[in-house]
Amino acid sequence: MRILARTVSGVVAGLLAGAAPLAGVAAKPAAEIRALEARLDAGISAELQDAWLKRMASAPNHVGSKHNRENAEFIRDQFRSWGWEAEIETFDVLYPTPLETRLEIVGGPKLGGQEPGIPEDATSNRLKDALPPYVAFGADGDVTADVVYVNYGLPADYELLARMGISVKGKIALARYGGGWRGLKPKLAQEQGAVGALIYSDPEQDGFGAAPPYPEGGGRPSTGVQRGSVADMTLYPGDPLTPGYGAVKGAKRLDRETAPAIMKIPVLPISYGDAEKIFARIGGRLAPASFTGRLPFAYRVGGAEALKLRLKVKSEWSLKPADNVIARLPGATRPNEWVVRGNHFDGWVFGAADPLSGMVAMMNEGKALGEMAKAGWRPDRTIIYAAWDAEEPLLLGSTEWAEHHGDELRRKAVLYLNTDGNGRGFFRAAGSHEWQRLVNGVANDVRDPQTGVSIGERARAKVRLDDWEGQNRGGAPALVAAEMGGDLPIGALGSGSDYSAFLQHLGVPSLNIGFGGENQSAGSYHSIYDSYDHFVRFDDPGLAYGAALSKTAGRIVLRAAEAEVLPLRFTDLAATVKGYLAEVKALATTQASKDAKRAGMIGAGVYALASDPMDPLGELPAVARTPKLDMGAMDAAVAKLEASAAAFDKAMAGADKLDAAGKDRLNAALLGIDQALLLAEGLPFRPWYRHALYAPGRFTGYGAKTLPGIREAVEERRFDDALAYAAKTAAALEALAGRLDVARGVLEGR
Amino acid sequence: MRILARTVSGVVAGLLAGAAPLAGVAAKPAAEIRALEARLDAGISAELQDAWLKRMASAPNHVGSKHNRENAEFIRDQFRSWGWEAEIETFDVLYPTPLETRLEIVGGPKLGGQEPGIPEDATSNRLKDALPPYVAFGADGDVTADVVYVNYGLPADYELLARMGISVKGKIALARYGGGWRGLKPKLAQEQGAVGALIYSDPEQDGFGAAPPYPEGGGRPSTGVQRGSVADMTLYPGDPLTPGYGAVKGAKRLDRETAPAIMKIPVLPISYGDAEKIFARIGGRLAPASFTGRLPFAYRVGGAEALKLRLKVKSEWSLKPADNVIARLPGATRPNEWVVRGNHFDGWVFGAADPLSGMVAMMNEGKALGEMAKAGWRPDRTIIYAAWDAEEPLLLGSTEWAEHHGDELRRKAVLYLNTDGNGRGFFRAAGSHEWQRLVNGVANDVRDPQTGVSIGERARAKVRLDDWEGQNRGGAPALVAAEMGGDLPIGALGSGSDYSAFLQHLGVPSLNIGFGGENQSAGSYHSIYDSYDHFVRFDDPGLAYGAALSKTAGRIVLRAAEAEVLPLRFTDLAATVKGYLAEVKALATTQASKDAKRAGMIGAGVYALASDPMDPLGELPAVARTPKLDMGAMDAAVAKLEASAAAFDKAMAGADKLDAAGKDRLNAALLGIDQALLLAEGLPFRPWYRHALYAPGRFTGYGAKTLPGIREAVEERRFDDALAYAAKTAAALEALAGRLDVARGVLEGR
Repeated sequence: MRILARTVSGVVAGLLAGAAPLAGVAAKPAAEIRALEARLDAGISAELQDAWLKRMASAPNHVGSKHNRENAEFIRDQFRSWGWEAEIETFDVLYPTPLETRLEIVGGPKLGGQEPGIPEDATSNRLKDALPPYVAFGADGDVTADVVYVNYGLPADYELLARMGISVKGKIALARYGGGWRGLKPKLAQEQGAVGALIYSDPEQDGFGAAPPYPEGGGRPSTGVQRGSVADMTLYPGDPLTPGYGAVKGAKRLDRETAPAIMKIPVLPISYGDAEKIFARIGGRLAPASFTGRLPFAYRVGGAEALKLRLKVKSEWSLKPADNVIARLPGATRPNEWVVRGNHFDGWVFGAADPLSGMVAMMNEGKALGEMAKAGWRPDRTIIYAAWDAEEPLLLGSTEWAEHHGDELRRKAVLYLNTDGNGRGFFRAAGSHEWQRLVNGVANDVRDPQTGVSIGERARAKVRLDDWEGQNRGGAPALVAAEMGGDLPIGALGSGSDYSAFLQHLGVPSLNIGFGGENQSAGSYHSIYDSYDHFVRFDDPGLAYGAALSKTAGRIVLRAAEAEVLPLRFTDLAATVKGYLAEVKALATTQASKDAKRAGMIGAGVYALASDPMDPLGELPAVARTPKLDMGAMDAAVAKLEASAAAFDKAMAGADKLDAAGKDRLNAALLGIDQALLLAEGLPFRPWYRHALYAPGRFTGYGAKTLPGIREAVEERRFDDALAYAAKTAAALEALAGRLDVARGVLEGR
Repeated sequence: MRILARTVSGVVAGLLAGAAPLAGVAAKPAAEIRALEARLDAGISAELQDAWLKRMASAPNHVGSKHNRENAEFIRDQFRSWGWEAEIETFDVLYPTPLETRLEIVGGPKLGGQEPGIPEDATSNRLKDALPPYVAFGADGDVTADVVYVNYGLPADYELLARMGISVKGKIALARYGGGWRGLKPKLAQEQGAVGALIYSDPEQDGFGAAPPYPEGGGRPSTGVQRGSVADMTLYPGDPLTPGYGAVKGAKRLDRETAPAIMKIPVLPISYGDAEKIFARIGGRLAPASFTGRLPFAYRVGGAEALKLRLKVKSEWSLKPADNVIARLPGATRPNEWVVRGNHFDGWVFGAADPLSGMVAMMNEGKALGEMAKAGWRPDRTIIYAAWDAEEPLLLGSTEWAEHHGDELRRKAVLYLNTDGNGRGFFRAAGSHEWQRLVNGVANDVRDPQTGVSIGERARAKVRLDDWEGQNRGGAPALVAAEMGGDLPIGALGSGSDYSAFLQHLGVPSLNIGFGGENQSAGSYHSIYDSYDHFVRFDDPGLAYGAALSKTAGRIVLRAAEAEVLPLRFTDLAATVKGYLAEVKALATTQASKDAKRAGMIGAGVYALASDPMDPLGELPAVARTPKLDMGAMDAAVAKLEASAAAFDKAMAGADKLDAAGKDRLNAALLGIDQALLLAEGLPFRPWYRHALYAPGRFTGYGAKTLPGIREAVEERRFDDALAYAAKTAAALEALAGRLDVARGVLEGR
């Protein structure tokens, strides 16, 4: 369920330029690595990727479908043919598929004419075996009720509706996509008392507001529907019945009716063609400006009993196989240090952009590395290529595998490198910041297919352009890193693809990379038009960026697998954490100032006086004032981490002077070092998420929250939690600093 | 042509609370003024205003029409019946009316089905004598050409188009309303080489983006067209053939073909229904995000020879009568000091909101004051009520009158108080800042019809609400004046109504006031639906705000006319000018910083690398870097003005100790004091505009530019002008300070 750049900016990041070549590959001759990378590049073929994409996207490939199993076997067989050990490792996961989906305007016009086949799109006419539009993990149900338009369906929207005197209690909530992860919308709707939920794709987000509708352009047509999952992924991903452990045969499973991640109300996604018919009859008050999308009328919020909708969903709830394909190239000298590389292969319908465009790039790396191995090369570390099944429904394949193999991964995994759907545009990377230097180094060495400069240089130009255009929309000019030289920062990971269990549950350092921003796959996202035909016209013609992705990811894998000592730079991590802390402090200060203003407004009755008496808005609700929060422990811990990181990085310059035993001791000291950042009891309300630095937001979903234990506590006014998690996070940072000091001891011969 | 609050925020301002009653009315017992104001209020009747509005808006009343002349005579006769001396003073002005207007898509569907009569709107079916949709002062012409969509048609839009490789040369420019004054659009289009121009009302601005379309709500329907004038009003308003002097019979007139204010290309306004048909065929590249409105498709910019439009306009160019009604109530004790109060009465079609809603409020004041006079009261100063004709075409009536009577006005006018269309909502005021205190005092004494608090208190609440909501869209919290107590600032005047010649040409202190923000008259603005029916449903039901306007304007007139010494506070002016100077300095600093960034981007070729190669954007054009600009003379002059104003205001506390001769001397010292702020040679390119503090922007039109000689020079990179006008403006401020010192001398018995 690849994150779309248009909807989640937090994970976007840029890259390098001008730094030393082969940054981070300590103590191995650059020429040797360069020679390997040349062989990697020689094995990359956009044409081959194109052919695989066409084949693998030729039929519906959702979890449990015939073609999805065929794709699993094809991937396995290909990897075997390239010389890898490859097996299908199956988990038995809960994955509901629709038996009946029905939406009617009682006494109104017919709805549901979604996604017709069109001559410009060959597979759109091959829908045998395809599932109709639905969302997985909504409840079974049959409800008839009035409807309320809730905008994005996020907390601020319900606050505004309450001040308008409008409730979804006993009604069906109609939300639009955007603003936060899909699954939050029915979750919050059911918490507000709604009896059902609909989610539609407003043309502002990915329809004609973004690009001309398909097939004229790549935008979502009025009939397009975004499928997806709607369980409470912010609680835990993976099989809703087996939180924290592998969904193997015979595993203990929660009762489906009470599993906390599964929705309790029926939910359906709909097209904006259908939404227009509902809006035309919805009645009620005019919607606030923030609720307005791009449909051609003045939006209203309903709730006035102007119409009734009947919403019925019935699913088939049996367990389905999640057929992960696991391929290995055993390490020659450090077989118990693993570099894990993954991309999923299950789609919602044909899945050309999401996920197969990333999958074929990963397969191409596998072919190139396999051929190098056949010719006699062996990596120092073990390389594992994982083709995940069942990512779309809650990251099931990767999560169950990571949970099931958790102990071994904690001991052995040095890096998890993820990709997902890919497209034309700019290189983006996000993840564990001690890997930032290596990512920048690689980005400096891969050519952009369209401009001929490095993908790092192009990303740098994009940062400058975005900064300039942002300023032209009102900001003050300020220097950005891209203007000053030095590495470009990588982003923080929230959720939305298969890195989640590795990073946030196990503490395995993780990266997620890809290209995009000039593709139009937002318009086909999770619909039947996410097809080969759409992809090669609007997303990555000729798969040029597929080839660039193979070269980029392949280099990261090679440098991670071949480095004699792990290529990490911790000052980048320390500086990043320092920045996060500054943000959290500014958040608390700004929030306290706004709280004072809010209290003054409530006292003066500003809304009673100044909101339109013919369209009134109630006063702001009172809130607990944000107190001054003591971040002294965090200041001290960040300072300690900065000092330890600086000393470690400095000492690392002498790593090549270590003998082989010394290098082994150093690698051992660094392996698993990020686990110091795990919080034993996890985050508030969701112990599965344990990372002190990165988490998907409770109210953003895919979007990352950094220093989540503290930041979300401030935002949600759990001020005791903010202080408690400041202490816990500080302890984690101190622990990391301590482990860095130990590793530096190895470098300094102690 | 009343400024719409939705499109011009610069003139919006708020008001007072909690200050001393009857502020500014030096040396007259408060009880005496309060008694007069009670008599004023007793003469105000919303019902009467409603009846007048219905009558006066019952037939088309554009300049030269039969009903417009009837309205002039009705106003004159009413004032006479209330005891005023009243005459019609006619000027012979150039006012073109359409003989033929034609727009066709060559070989395409029919256009032009604008503004049908509808059963919900009685006058919409009485279009005999109405003019078809057109804009006045566009050229005659008949052109057939391709079309380019130029967004708002402002300089930034043409810069972006040029970087896309698109020119309007030889083509018809299609602009949307908004972003700047209507007349700038064809002016800039012709400068860019366009052969014709169209202006359409995008639903984002005043259609369903603002309110449900009429008659469901008050928003502009798909057939609605905004008429208006398109001459170069930023050069000079008034008759294009008689700049600077009255268009009396026999006056020397410029040649129409070469008069600089008249457009050289044909221009028509169109509905968004028609615009949609053009956009559906326009072709060419996708429009940038800033060009996108609310129509339901991905906007394209055309220029690809995908269609041809034929645009033909032929007008009847004879002189027409501008029948100003001038009514006088001679002053008992200071007959040669005039308080002038104005509102226009000509409309584009029925003109219910614009201008008659303001006109009937003014008439009601006239009735109340007249009845007081009949009962024996006489104002101290002479009161002149002016009902202007021919405001819609370039402020013709008021400008010719002010130019013709310029010498006398400079000698006698103490204040010009203007209103225009009025509606439900918040009190707003803008104008000469030494009158800010009086305006605040009045606003504290008039009740808001909907909430029962004072209109000042409601305006204060609105400022706080807007500030809060602005911060929720991203700004940092900061205190606004409304939270801190003290007066609320009034805005600065640009253009758009009849104060322009008084304030900016003659230096007569001026105020423009009104209510709005909860009305929906944007949707009927300058169309046939600006009707009585629309007004009483959506703009000011029951004319409750018409009555409030009468009470407010009547109080300002009374306090100005009755004050024994002119009720001015110059520290408000000085503080405002100090703020303007800080803005201009910040503008120069920010612009210099952006210039440096821009130069770096051009050097790095950022757009070549980062704009989409399949949708490329050329590099930013190079600009002359903004130098450090020496504002020392302005700093010194502002400091001098602050000191002189503070000393004067302090001395004014003792004004009531002056004897009658002293008061006469003080009034004489203050009369015409603002003329110190006039620049003898006027502003660059436009000598007609002479005020050093306030002007309509060269590239905003109605929107005000403060310290215009300096500010616009910085913005337009005329850095020598910026320094030259800093010196001239400083000299004007010093001159004002000198006159204040003289006035203070009177107060201090020197």
